[in-house]
Amino acid sequence: MELKNITYFVGQDSGSWAVQSMRAVAGKGLPLSQSLAIVKDVPSVENNKWLLRGFTSNLRYTTRPEKVVLDQQPSILGKPENSLAAFIPIKKSEAWWLLTQDERRKIMAEDSLHIEIGAKYLSAVSRQLFHCRDIGEEFDFLTWFEFSAYNKEKFDELLYLLRKTEEWKYVEREVEVRLKRV
Amino acid sequence: MELKNITYFVGQDSGSWAVQSMRAVAGKGLPLSQSLAIVKDVPSVENNKWLLRGFTSNLRYTTRPEKVVLDQQPSILGKPENSLAAFIPIKKSEAWWLLTQDERRKIMAEDSLHIEIGAKYLSAVSRQLFHCRDIGEEFDFLTWFEFSAYNKEKFDELLYLLRKTEEWKYVEREVEVRLKRV
Repeated sequence: MELKNITYFVGQDSGSWAVQSMRAVAGKGLPLSQSLAIVKDVPSVENNKWLLRGFTSNLRYTTRPEKVVLDQQPSILGKPENSLAAFIPIKKSEAWWLLTQDERRKIMAEDSLHIEIGAKYLSAVSRQLFHCRDIGEEFDFLTWFEFSAYNKEKFDELLYLLRKTEEWKYVEREVEVRLKRV
Repeated sequence: MELKNITYFVGQDSGSWAVQSMRAVAGKGLPLSQSLAIVKDVPSVENNKWLLRGFTSNLRYTTRPEKVVLDQQPSILGKPENSLAAFIPIKKSEAWWLLTQDERRKIMAEDSLHIEIGAKYLSAVSRQLFHCRDIGEEFDFLTWFEFSAYNKEKFDELLYLLRKTEEWKYVEREVEVRLKRV
């Protein structure tokens, strides 16, 4: 009966990623935890500070020319040199979800250059997007990024650029968790 | 820990919809069952012939002009005169999912007129789409339709037109379950 393709992010006292910092960028934060564990099987609920879950999906906005660019530098998680990570759950406003596909695509891609900005950081930052609005979670997306200490400033720059965009005006809750591999 | 927004379709020996017929339109069928129950809570696994589940989501292809047309005749389930229903789980091929958003939209909307064809039957057929590929189910979509005995032929016509489209070449598994309200 267990659903497949669900990844669980668990804030707890031990785990393979040590929490360096947690902050509420917009809206309500999450309870502080010392570590983060990422698991594919339903975790026990004991001793969890928080538990978020999501699924990977097909690309929902990308066009063929954009995908050609993305595919030139596939995102690889677990690279040994990538000792740092960021876990950023995001919830967009109801206004965003009332937009139609073409309207969301226009704001994200044309007005905000989300895909174009992201593409510049592909070699420095590995990432994976998880969806969770569809399964009734408190966030809409769980975003996960891995990078090296050398590329930390590049990642900060990427975050800075994305948060300035038109698209980010629709973000009503965002928590930033910075992590270091144990 | 239970996921929210999941609807369960259960093939069993009793339920609020009596099965009139079941057939495999493409690919493997489902075990025969006498009835179908639709529930929002995790059903007991005893005595089920089959169990499929999915979630509703935001519109993933519709443009604003198309949504304006759709919104003029919102789909209302449970109308007393709609004594007939069809449950049609569908799985599309890997080739479909390897297409980008613009390519899928072109085949579905421009080449196959899926949205335009569907719009003509809005007053005769109530419907709800459930997604399930993202949660690792054996189908990608669970489609549900309700209509009156008077409109049965209209629904047959809708199915006939959609199955002739370019989009349907990507359907590799499809089961058609016809039902009557008990």
